[in-house]
Formats: sequence, C-alpha cells, structure tokens
Amino acid sequence: MINLPSKLNLWRQSFEERFEAIQNTLYSEDHSLHQACRYALAGQGKRIRPLFAMAAAEACSGRPEDALSLAVAAEMIHTYSLVHDDLPCMDDDDMRRGRATTHVIFDETTALLAGDALLSDAFLVVANDRELSAEIRANAVAQLAMAAGGRGMVKGQALDMYWTGRNDFTRADLDSIHLNKTGALIAASCSLGGLAAGATSTQVQTLEAFGRGIGLVFQIIDDLLDTAEGTGKSLGKDANLGKLTYLSLMTAEAAKNHAARLTDETLALVSSWGSQADALKQLGLSLLERKV
Amino acid sequence: MINLPSKLNLWRQSFEERFEAIQNTLYSEDHSLHQACRYALAGQGKRIRPLFAMAAAEACSGRPEDALSLAVAAEMIHTYSLVHDDLPCMDDDDMRRGRATTHVIFDETTALLAGDALLSDAFLVVANDRELSAEIRANAVAQLAMAAGGRGMVKGQALDMYWTGRNDFTRADLDSIHLNKTGALIAASCSLGGLAAGATSTQVQTLEAFGRGIGLVFQIIDDLLDTAEGTGKSLGKDANLGKLTYLSLMTAEAAKNHAARLTDETLALVSSWGSQADALKQLGLSLLERKV
Repeated sequence: MINLPSKLNLWRQSFEERFEAIQNTLYSEDHSLHQACRYALAGQGKRIRPLFAMAAAEACSGRPEDALSLAVAAEMIHTYSLVHDDLPCMDDDDMRRGRATTHVIFDETTALLAGDALLSDAFLVVANDRELSAEIRANAVAQLAMAAGGRGMVKGQALDMYWTGRNDFTRADLDSIHLNKTGALIAASCSLGGLAAGATSTQVQTLEAFGRGIGLVFQIIDDLLDTAEGTGKSLGKDANLGKLTYLSLMTAEAAKNHAARLTDETLALVSSWGSQADALKQLGLSLLERKV
Repeated sequence: MINLPSKLNLWRQSFEERFEAIQNTLYSEDHSLHQACRYALAGQGKRIRPLFAMAAAEACSGRPEDALSLAVAAEMIHTYSLVHDDLPCMDDDDMRRGRATTHVIFDETTALLAGDALLSDAFLVVANDRELSAEIRANAVAQLAMAAGGRGMVKGQALDMYWTGRNDFTRADLDSIHLNKTGALIAASCSLGGLAAGATSTQVQTLEAFGRGIGLVFQIIDDLLDTAEGTGKSLGKDANLGKLTYLSLMTAEAAKNHAARLTDETLALVSSWGSQADALKQLGLSLLERKV
C-alpha cells in the first residue's frame, strides 16, 4: 500500500463510502451479472485514480469531496479494464489483487458482460451527479470517454497485445503503450479533479500533463515490481507473458533513475501552485516509492 | 429494408454523412483496432435507432438534424453490443448482416477491444457535440448509459444467456429479456430525440414508453423472421441456439396479433401530438410490417 498521510486516509474513507453507496444503487439485484460487478469492484485496489482526482481538486482550490463521483467513475473504468484484460482471449490471468479473477469465479460470459456494465455505468455516475453543473458533467464525460476509448486506454491495450512476444520494439513503442494503457486514465483522473473544482482550462491541461507523467512513472515502477515478491500478482507474470517492459530496454538501476527524473519533471509542472498542491505532489512522489 | 418514404430517406442520408465524419475522426489510424471498429460500423444496419431519434426530435417540434450525433452514439452502442454478442463466449456467431462477424475477420481479442472502444467513444460523441447545450448533453449521456448498462441492455443480454436452453420460462421472463436487451436502447433513442429538441420531461418520458413498446414489437417480429429466409442472419439460428422466442410461447398467428395490438397501443401514446409525430408513428408501424 502507498503510505498515506492522515488526510489522504480520510479522503480514501470518503471515497469508499461513496463507492459503496453507488454500488448499492447500481448493482443491488440478485443475479450473477450484478454479483460479478460487485465482485470485480470489491478487489481492494490502491485507489490511485480516485486519490489523484481528489488531490487535483484540492490543488485547484476546490473541495476534494466534489470530485467523489468522478473518482468513482474512474475507478469503475479502471476495474472494467482489468476484468476484460484478464479474460482468456486477452492476458488469460487467473489471479488479480490476490484474488481469483472475475471470469474464474463466474464465467467468461458473465465477466465480459460485467466489464461492459461497469464501463457504461461509469458514465451514468458522472452524468447523474447533480452536485456538479451540467457543463462540468459533460466535460468530465468527454475527458473520461476520450481516455478510455479507441484513442486512449483501449488503444494502449491493443498495442500491448500486438507487441506481446515481439522484440523489435523501441522505447517510443513502449512509451506509447503505457501512455495510452495506463497514462490516459490517470491523466483523466487528474483533470477530472480540476474540472470538479471549476479549474481553468489551462489548469486542467497542466493536470493532464501531470497525470501522463505520473502514469509513466507508475508503469516503470510496475515493471520493476513485476519481478518482486508480495504484490498479489503472479510473480514475473508480465515478463513471462512476453510483455514489453522497461526492463527489456534498460537495467533496473537505469529504470529507477529514469522514473526518479520523470517524477521530478512532473512535480515541477505544479511547483508554482503553492501548498494547496502538496497532497497532489505527495501522491506523485508516493508512486515512485511504492513497494506494491 | 424498411420501406421509407422520401423524408426518412433524406434523414438516413444525413445520418450516414455524420456517421462517416465521426468515424473519420475517431478511427483514422492504420492499425487493427481502428480497422475493426470501422469494419463493425460498416455493417449496413437498418438504422432503426437513428431514425427513431430523428423522428422523435421532429415529433417534439425540433429539427431532426439536431439529434444526429445522439443518433450516431446510439448506433455505435448498438454495434458494440452486436460485436460482443457474436463473440465465441457469447452467441458464437460467424455471420451478421450478411457479412462475417468482426472476430472472424480480425480475432477475438481485437473484436472485444473494438466493442469496448465503440462503447466508450459513443459517450465521447455525445459529450463533444457543442451544438447541444451542456444540460442536454449530460442528460443524453445519462439516458444512453442507463439504457446500455447493468440495469439495461447488458442485463438483458445476461438474462438471455441465462435462459438459453431452458424451457421453464414465463412470458414475463421473455418480456424482461427483450425490454432490456432490445427495448432499452430503442427507448433511449426515442428519448434522445426528444432531449435534442428541448422537449419537456413529460414528453421525454412518453417517448421512452413509446420506444419500449416499439422495441417489444421489433423483437416479436424478429422472432417471426428468425424462421424466414433472406434476413442475412443464419436461418432459425436463435431457435437452434435454444434462445427464448415468442414462438416457444405462442403460435406465429398469435404472435403477429400480439405485435399488432402492441403497435396500436404504442402509437396511441402520441396520438394527440399532431402531424409532427407522423414520421414517428410511420416508423413505428414499419417495424410491424418489416420483412427483414
């Protein structure tokens, strides 16, 4: 787990409460589709995207709580992507976050449909948050949909599948996979926080750039942790699957240095934002230092 | 094909132009994900949902053209659902609209991802239509997401898969499958047209009820056509798969009568709307009389 100071822990609590309430509204029926949606959402993730959304709201002088439903939507989209990525026709993974994956507990059909439901319903959550103005809701839907769709996360996953098992790739190919597959949704989470706080479009763009940088750092560290014990993922799984990782291009030492440099550059984007951006910067730094 | 009077043909042309322009924006890159999205969207559907959206806009004294991007979004969501429904872990269908299905032309992974992209990007299309007010865009996203998600179309598909091959179902089970699987998105298409025209919430609700009724009629006729030649679908496919159809519960004659009665009841919902609702009523009637 990220070592969160107490403020971030409170944010996380607020997030879990809103997340639970929204799940109770969306998936209360007694059939396997709703059970599978809840099972998928119950995996205790690190809540990186929600926390970045809330920290970004604070960084723009807003209330972190105003970003809660946008944070839930980002986490739902993240979860849908994991459910689909784990399917047999994708990475065929049986374990995720230390638990059996959704298609193992239910079946492939139900897992596919649960992912579809989570993706649609994430947009429902954004569009239905009457605490936010219609302008903010519409802009948030656009940001999230752009990040998730065929020029964002889905493209990143398609590139990832394309390159798996090949070794004629360049650093640019690897960056492109990760910027789309991981970076786009983390970037959107940051910009959603800004939107919820009524930030200017310049601020929102800076937050997006911040999120893209942080997303790359997250992925480099992920590659380093892939070969480490105790992450709840299958050990060395990505490398064994023939996935492109930074460690195929550079030593672990060089990867760590690259991540540290990238973190510095990224934090510098908001260096003039004052102390209200402290939590955002702290979160960014925690990705570099995380152990799981 | 539905026998469309010339006005509806013009609408269809406008739709195809907007649809093409949006595809050019979203899926212009030279890789298999974008190719698969375009392949899936190129299946010449009947454009039922887009035409209902445009007719509903006119029925509420609006311009049918104002509903165009919402119509595109509805068609994209319809297309994503077909791509996923045809996958091996779902109905495992090789043919659709007289062409090989997306996973047959590409592969299962690419088809799954193309469906995911179409679903996300449909919401991008709605959220980005700056001709509509933010309020309309946010409401349209909510309508579409509700219709598509875990309490709408995806639930209908899950129920459909659950009941396949069983014979202890009731009429209520069958209606519930179809109201969710087919009816929800047709209903949303009608209400989207109303939203684009700035209709009152009472009008939008009436349009939704209209769409639900018409959606059921569509499905009953679909079941009747399933056993008929020349539809471009595999003949008797649904029945052979053990799918629930109205013909397992009643004779073809009784099903036809039921559809005709339901059509009358549904058209009556807008009987007081005057001649501006003529195209909407004509479209509703055309579903009862369609041959493919």
